[in-house]
Amino acid sequence: MARANWIDDDNHPDLDAHVGQLEHFAQAIADGHVDEAEMARQEENLIAAMRAVESSLSDEQHAKVTRLLAEIAAYTVMQMMHDMAQAKVQRAVK
Amino acid sequence: MARANWIDDDNHPDLDAHVGQLEHFAQAIADGHVDEAEMARQEENLIAAMRAVESSLSDEQHAKVTRLLAEIAAYTVMQMMHDMAQAKVQRAVK
Repeated sequence: MARANWIDDDNHPDLDAHVGQLEHFAQAIADGHVDEAEMARQEENLIAAMRAVESSLSDEQHAKVTRLLAEIAAYTVMQMMHDMAQAKVQRAVK
Repeated sequence: MARANWIDDDNHPDLDAHVGQLEHFAQAIADGHVDEAEMARQEENLIAAMRAVESSLSDEQHAKVTRLLAEIAAYTVMQMMHDMAQAKVQRAVK
């Protein structure tokens, strides 16, 4: 089984392709608005993905994946803050 | 070794505590702005966390963690979109 890349050839995180394959995500954000029902469904998707892998990990792997989940959540928040600030600057420059 | 919880007693994702332990993240967003240097450092943190666990996973575990990373990134984006929309409504109501 070929492994999906997490890191691209330039040594940057490369998860957009995997996120892009989540049809439920694309549908949820398509209208630019995320409602309570969409949020609840994504909670279920996330919890299902957690449960699918959690029990198969050793304690050491579990600790490392926990750290990885925290880092990717932080990265995603920072990326959105950064992108929104850039969009604001671009609007101001126009 | 006690395992960190990913899911709380009410069956909701429970990662805020783990994200909150990342001092570099708290520092980066403290001023409400994420600059290029902070983004680059977080890329390094994320890649280090990926490399720390990736090689120890079986192919099956790797595929499941890949899905989990995508779901958590999608969840984080949706949560921010949802929270921002709520904040907008609250400002409008005031």
